[in-house]
Amino acid sequence: MRNLLDTASLTRADAIRILDVAEDMADTQQREIKKLPTLRGKTVVNLFFEDSTRTRISFEAAAKRLSADVINFSAKGSSVSKGESLQDTAQTLQAMGADAVVIRHGASGAPRTLASSGWITAGVVNAGDGTHEHPTQALLDAFTIRKRRFGGDSRGRGLDGLRVTIVGDVLHSRVARSNVWLLTTLGASVTLVSPPTLVPQDVSGWPVTIRYDLDEAIAHEPDALMVLRIQLERMSAAYFPTEREYSRRWGLDAERLAALAPGSMVMHPGPMNRGLEISADAADSPRSTVLEQVANGVSVRMAVLYLLLAGERTGDDHRETKDDAR
Amino acid sequence: MRNLLDTASLTRADAIRILDVAEDMADTQQREIKKLPTLRGKTVVNLFFEDSTRTRISFEAAAKRLSADVINFSAKGSSVSKGESLQDTAQTLQAMGADAVVIRHGASGAPRTLASSGWITAGVVNAGDGTHEHPTQALLDAFTIRKRRFGGDSRGRGLDGLRVTIVGDVLHSRVARSNVWLLTTLGASVTLVSPPTLVPQDVSGWPVTIRYDLDEAIAHEPDALMVLRIQLERMSAAYFPTEREYSRRWGLDAERLAALAPGSMVMHPGPMNRGLEISADAADSPRSTVLEQVANGVSVRMAVLYLLLAGERTGDDHRETKDDAR
Amino acid sequence: MRNLLDTASLTRADAIRILDVAEDMADTQQREIKKLPTLRGKTVVNLFFEDSTRTRISFEAAAKRLSADVINFSAKGSSVSKGESLQDTAQTLQAMGADAVVIRHGASGAPRTLASSGWITAGVVNAGDGTHEHPTQALLDAFTIRKRRFGGDSRGRGLDGLRVTIVGDVLHSRVARSNVWLLTTLGASVTLVSPPTLVPQDVSGWPVTIRYDLDEAIAHEPDALMVLRIQLERMSAAYFPTEREYSRRWGLDAERLAALAPGSMVMHPGPMNRGLEISADAADSPRSTVLEQVANGVSVRMAVLYLLLAGERTGDDHRETKDDAR
Repeated sequence: MRNLLDTASLTRADAIRILDVAEDMADTQQREIKKLPTLRGKTVVNLFFEDSTRTRISFEAAAKRLSADVINFSAKGSSVSKGESLQDTAQTLQAMGADAVVIRHGASGAPRTLASSGWITAGVVNAGDGTHEHPTQALLDAFTIRKRRFGGDSRGRGLDGLRVTIVGDVLHSRVARSNVWLLTTLGASVTLVSPPTLVPQDVSGWPVTIRYDLDEAIAHEPDALMVLRIQLERMSAAYFPTEREYSRRWGLDAERLAALAPGSMVMHPGPMNRGLEISADAADSPRSTVLEQVANGVSVRMAVLYLLLAGERTGDDHRETKDDAR
Repeated sequence: MRNLLDTASLTRADAIRILDVAEDMADTQQREIKKLPTLRGKTVVNLFFEDSTRTRISFEAAAKRLSADVINFSAKGSSVSKGESLQDTAQTLQAMGADAVVIRHGASGAPRTLASSGWITAGVVNAGDGTHEHPTQALLDAFTIRKRRFGGDSRGRGLDGLRVTIVGDVLHSRVARSNVWLLTTLGASVTLVSPPTLVPQDVSGWPVTIRYDLDEAIAHEPDALMVLRIQLERMSAAYFPTEREYSRRWGLDAERLAALAPGSMVMHPGPMNRGLEISADAADSPRSTVLEQVANGVSVRMAVLYLLLAGERTGDDHRETKDDAR
Repeated sequence: MRNLLDTASLTRADAIRILDVAEDMADTQQREIKKLPTLRGKTVVNLFFEDSTRTRISFEAAAKRLSADVINFSAKGSSVSKGESLQDTAQTLQAMGADAVVIRHGASGAPRTLASSGWITAGVVNAGDGTHEHPTQALLDAFTIRKRRFGGDSRGRGLDGLRVTIVGDVLHSRVARSNVWLLTTLGASVTLVSPPTLVPQDVSGWPVTIRYDLDEAIAHEPDALMVLRIQLERMSAAYFPTEREYSRRWGLDAERLAALAPGSMVMHPGPMNRGLEISADAADSPRSTVLEQVANGVSVRMAVLYLLLAGERTGDDHRETKDDAR
């Protein structure tokens, strides 16, 4: 694997391979082998043009547990704000010896531009670009669903036959997009629930069912209900309901929680607006996978960095280096 | 030791134990064994809701010398400012594998909330909360007094019979509060000197002597005179004297320095407002322990992190892991 | 070597020694030995009073490859902005155990003040001070010229007989100043090209040729043409031409690039204003050393940190520790 730019172009085999390596990583963490020597001497740069402490910390923790050196590059106050182009920034990081660049950028497509430009040979990981994709979020979501459902018997499996419902502001959500592509690739059927004004225009081409009524969607008994975070700064926009209206119609409250089928799980990418898109009951219920998602995020990111960086030397012979990591 | 939230609830035995381990840590540093493997694989998160470069760096240096991984989480520009609750932030850090959370917060009691909530199992260290406490500052102050007074013969000792005078804005000072509880627990007698408007209302319940006149306090020959930092932003408030007035009546100038008994030391938590609460003469005199306090701060924080994190595995058998650290 | 404060006082022997150690460092990096144990247990503090992500990251990468611990201290939001003096900041870092302080400061001379004050024993590296000097930039420039010209046969050499032309806002450029002193010390002859309003007043005492016409300077066939970065914020000042006028008369465009003698190289300290002081053609041409300069920057900074910190223990016996580093 050279880069991780999206889930739309990820094959089922590659996706399952990432999830399986993430299982290995999770195992080492649980056996209290927190520090693996695998990426010693490698340098991972977190190149963040938008603030995101949670995602940055998750990648930082993942890289450090693999013994990589981590350099945080926040684009605020940097020469980028003095007018330096993405090209010059990228080439500079490359010249300094970056082995992987984890990039978050406000413009959709910036990670692909970076990876396909020929400016750098370092691996590129998309940590969220505009309203396009956030592939490691979808991978950790898929990992979480698989692990909850199949436990120790997860390895090698997809999500065939499972039903996942995603509710919220789908229009602006890169998390929703990445999940749609990945979950369907893995065999799940995906339903999107959203206010009519927040459905993307090109949604007719997506492999999903669209609904506007959350209660109706819940009646169809999803195995997982994924609640998207509401960006409060969008609340004032014309196409958006009021906070109260949103919460009443598309929020996951105690009543809707009770209506979920037994065994179905509640997911949220965090940080949660408790009382808005999700009630405290739902957030803290045993159905909630919110904290597993965070923990799994570190394992999945370890797997991605490992496959990008340890893979360089051994080519496709994954098994050999995986043993090294143990 | 599970957490370090305050000095008010610290027993004499626990306090002396921390100081003794800090002596061990200081010894390794002086023998140029700067890097100990003790906390390899442990992750320490600095969760700072208020800026404090000095305290953050001191904890960071302490953790790195014990080979822990350090992740800095400044709450500015983070999802916390997007409305995420302390609960969600804490649970996220826990889920990512934090073994200890060093927290600075503007609200008194936030570290205790964090530790007693059941949200996390990571150890919590209070790095300053509102006007409540700053326990590692008091521990490094006690360590400094003990070491200056008893030198190589410090181990196992308290501060019995020593007289410590603290001068400044006691009302708003968490450093003063933490020192009052710790120093008296260790057997010292404490005098507070302060403008009448800056004495806390509940001070009648404190085990201290109150004075308003610094010269009078100096005439009582304290073993240590601790000068608090003046927060310049409070100078304009109604209950505060002018800068000039403050300096004249409660500042430590050359004349007062000369009036101190032989062998008594001058302390300041830093950063100093030279010329305001302390003159350059006093700050740089051989009586001044200011730089020792900074150096001892790293040793004390190493000891605290060590007792919180290395202790997990070995329970109460402190001696064994302490030998490991050597 | 105790400190690196400027190039003006650097002897030819010392300069060549730094460049030669940097060659060793570059060799280890190319042989994929990215992590050297040389500075394990040493602490390097990046003390930046001005933002400079590129320079900070370059020093951070250099220190980490030598296994030093790195602590970043941005003076923004620190107690420095609360009025703490450089003295107290420096003494605090020293007391916390800093072995080297890499300082960037807006005031010319701040690094020398720090090093000569007696406040600290840590080594001081000037990472740019006001309009005074930026010595590691000049060292990496000299390293780049030497390596391009002499390749594997560089060690031990100066730049005798080479002609270097520097074009831009010389008046405000610490990069230009550091290069003038270093390059002439190494035997090169230096020409400065600049708008008449941007020539320093004391330039008559410098060992350089002054020109105002870039085409004339190019006709004299420099071995290296170094283009300085234009600070856009100065464009509005009275003594400055318009952007368009500047670009037309002192910018390196495709035509001027073609007029350069065969084998002459194009340099820029970065970040570049493409289309202003340098065209994209020139920036990306095979003559351009821009990316080599960045890569060499890490090697040169590794060499400087190594000579400052590993040198402490072994005194002048450089060879022995150098072998350790391999």
